[in-house]
Amino acid sequence: MNSLLTMNELQVREINEILKDAHSFAEGRQWAPGKKLFVANLFFEPSTRTKSSFEVAERRLGLDVIHFDAETSSVQKGETLYDTAKTLQSIGVGALVIRHEQDRYFDELKGKLNIPVINAGDGCGNHPTQSLLDLLTIQQEFGSLRRLKIAIIGDIRHSRVARSNADALSRLGAEVVFSGPKEWMDFSLESGSYENIDSAIKTADVVMLLRIQHERHSGDSSAPDGDYLSSFGMTKERERSMKPKAIIMHPAPVNRGMEIDSELVECDRSRIFKQMENGVFVRMAVLKRAFEKAEGGNIYEAHNQKWFVAN
Amino acid sequence: MNSLLTMNELQVREINEILKDAHSFAEGRQWAPGKKLFVANLFFEPSTRTKSSFEVAERRLGLDVIHFDAETSSVQKGETLYDTAKTLQSIGVGALVIRHEQDRYFDELKGKLNIPVINAGDGCGNHPTQSLLDLLTIQQEFGSLRRLKIAIIGDIRHSRVARSNADALSRLGAEVVFSGPKEWMDFSLESGSYENIDSAIKTADVVMLLRIQHERHSGDSSAPDGDYLSSFGMTKERERSMKPKAIIMHPAPVNRGMEIDSELVECDRSRIFKQMENGVFVRMAVLKRAFEKAEGGNIYEAHNQKWFVAN
Amino acid sequence: MNSLLTMNELQVREINEILKDAHSFAEGRQWAPGKKLFVANLFFEPSTRTKSSFEVAERRLGLDVIHFDAETSSVQKGETLYDTAKTLQSIGVGALVIRHEQDRYFDELKGKLNIPVINAGDGCGNHPTQSLLDLLTIQQEFGSLRRLKIAIIGDIRHSRVARSNADALSRLGAEVVFSGPKEWMDFSLESGSYENIDSAIKTADVVMLLRIQHERHSGDSSAPDGDYLSSFGMTKERERSMKPKAIIMHPAPVNRGMEIDSELVECDRSRIFKQMENGVFVRMAVLKRAFEKAEGGNIYEAHNQKWFVAN
Repeated sequence: MNSLLTMNELQVREINEILKDAHSFAEGRQWAPGKKLFVANLFFEPSTRTKSSFEVAERRLGLDVIHFDAETSSVQKGETLYDTAKTLQSIGVGALVIRHEQDRYFDELKGKLNIPVINAGDGCGNHPTQSLLDLLTIQQEFGSLRRLKIAIIGDIRHSRVARSNADALSRLGAEVVFSGPKEWMDFSLESGSYENIDSAIKTADVVMLLRIQHERHSGDSSAPDGDYLSSFGMTKERERSMKPKAIIMHPAPVNRGMEIDSELVECDRSRIFKQMENGVFVRMAVLKRAFEKAEGGNIYEAHNQKWFVAN
Repeated sequence: MNSLLTMNELQVREINEILKDAHSFAEGRQWAPGKKLFVANLFFEPSTRTKSSFEVAERRLGLDVIHFDAETSSVQKGETLYDTAKTLQSIGVGALVIRHEQDRYFDELKGKLNIPVINAGDGCGNHPTQSLLDLLTIQQEFGSLRRLKIAIIGDIRHSRVARSNADALSRLGAEVVFSGPKEWMDFSLESGSYENIDSAIKTADVVMLLRIQHERHSGDSSAPDGDYLSSFGMTKERERSMKPKAIIMHPAPVNRGMEIDSELVECDRSRIFKQMENGVFVRMAVLKRAFEKAEGGNIYEAHNQKWFVAN
Repeated sequence: MNSLLTMNELQVREINEILKDAHSFAEGRQWAPGKKLFVANLFFEPSTRTKSSFEVAERRLGLDVIHFDAETSSVQKGETLYDTAKTLQSIGVGALVIRHEQDRYFDELKGKLNIPVINAGDGCGNHPTQSLLDLLTIQQEFGSLRRLKIAIIGDIRHSRVARSNADALSRLGAEVVFSGPKEWMDFSLESGSYENIDSAIKTADVVMLLRIQHERHSGDSSAPDGDYLSSFGMTKERERSMKPKAIIMHPAPVNRGMEIDSELVECDRSRIFKQMENGVFVRMAVLKRAFEKAEGGNIYEAHNQKWFVAN
């Protein structure tokens, strides 16, 4: 069984395997496990796109999705995450997809379940399938990540995406720079250096805008004052200054008129909705990996898995 | 691709086609799209029957229903309806069924998506599948709507049903009259005239009772005083005054003892639960229409769709 | 059609039939109704395991599960449970699984629907599928219930499990004793007698711990003071005093460190997660029974049902 918890634990070779499988899914190839498999999506934080994207990915693989509503679950009665997860395993669920507001919630589960866990976001920490879909989108555009300059802009400190991405991008050969309000930089990150916003946008091949996480800033005096769009956002003027083939990315949901001028959300350079499309393919690849290599003792092991061409 | 947003936009010919298909479904005929299709139900207002009815209709057509929980969606993070809809389109959803508290929410989406939108109710405006199921129920009873007298009674001003229905009923040849508390009449409606409650019930072939929308009247001083049932409801006495073959309809949920005496909810004249049954068939027909005529550019076009007889 | 509302209404012969079918499912045998069948799970109280367990059971039988969210349903608009149930029947749902906070909510529905209702817990009253999974777990362990001594410990007064279980256990030949805080005993129960905690645990073949229902004790001055675990819980010391082959059961969710020392939750004697596993098999058997014997007038009658061996 192959959990996916953080990007750091993936070797470059494994990242490339996942991306290759995702490419295959994008081209219409199909894969299905050899038997009926249940999966549960445990989202302890609101989300449209990640949850729906996982659900579409699961259904396309022919998995059976068990509905789990965190709001009305026994977690409300004080049950631990471990007991909830073990319960789902006991009733026959073959994999768990979990989003949780607590950083590294999965440490509580490690080595204690015999079904894979796929991390759909933990606190301000990791969001590996988001990183992978970003990588896929860049790879589709430029063939390789080698020698690309990638500017990550915005709320680095609270961003799952920034942390998951920066290291992976570096390991795959890209140069990463950060920009945005100084209050929101995280100088503890090992990969990437700080660059002035205008210069970063002008010289990057890929500009990755981050969401302003309003819901994480309630009562936070570190939020920058003034007009965010003109100071640190993608204005029409900055867009015009970009290199000819450079692209714009954003994990969404977009705060229109803040991180990006509303009219640029679907401009020629924008890959924002392409990223969402790719999210499904990446998640299919991650789920395939989870079941495919499931170890012997697991009754949910997929036997007859094989690739076949979509008709 | 064929969205369905309002009754007004449907020509009489199109209404009849949908009703004909719904009849076929009621008789057990089946139809399935030629390939795996996802649909999402976005309900931003509470509903049991409309949401469940759409879900049963979707499943009977073999569609894959993606669960969407408006309460925990990114709309909570301030995402626009357009961005949510476009997101779902991007991840591969082939049609959206939407209920929203805002009148004409769909204007924001028109011409901007390449998947069909089916309106499951907008604010106090339209609710076309409810109108269609009403039409189907009347047609089953009387064969045709020509020359029938139809009394719509109750909260006309706040009712999606009244507005969607009145015009369609008139266009199909019926005579429409309204009755109920004067405060709740809407004299801007083009079809239909006001009639005294007792006379309306005595002379109508179809009495359509409307729900008192408590949830829309909070702090509304226009709500009528006194005993609603005896003033404007279907009492046993009024029921006895009806024409021999006249029927009673109500969109439900019923406020028992308000719009109608509780004992009459399942009386011989009542078609209330029949309406619910018909709702599934009408929604199957509307979904069939949405996918069947999907235009060339849409990857979710249904190829091998065909009618076949249920076994 | 075969509803299942309380354990009392089941004859010993019927209990044994259900357990036999559940055993078959546990061994991998399969059963499917002859046609497409919809089922809706109406949970008006929070639950993870019961709801998910029913959903897995339903899916394993090939049933189509209609999503029903009690929080956003028309019950919020004041609709009665009967009208909600009748609505679901009208749109084609073939069985209802209901959990409701009101004792004997099902009396309102009896004889008025023509689809089966399966009680997934009513107030402080009944929870028959929990009782059945307990019986299955004990039977798997000891072959028969005859002459076993079973100690039910904890919050008898508020426990659905205690009431559902005590009578059934007695009827199947077991001796039942109760233990726990005197304030929480229910001396109106007909089966079983009170015994001191240490003696009960030392002499029982099966120790069934009950959950402390915090959510039912808000503002309840009858809650016992002091350290529950050391007074009435399964401590390591008490566990060591148990008979060699005696087992520990708990309906879960467990309050770790209250009813049971956290380290004992997965000890050798514990059948807590085994119970959850068995829950799926018992619910499959109960659903099979509901559809299998559905009477003539029901369009959801299962025609070609048969047992077949899983491959």
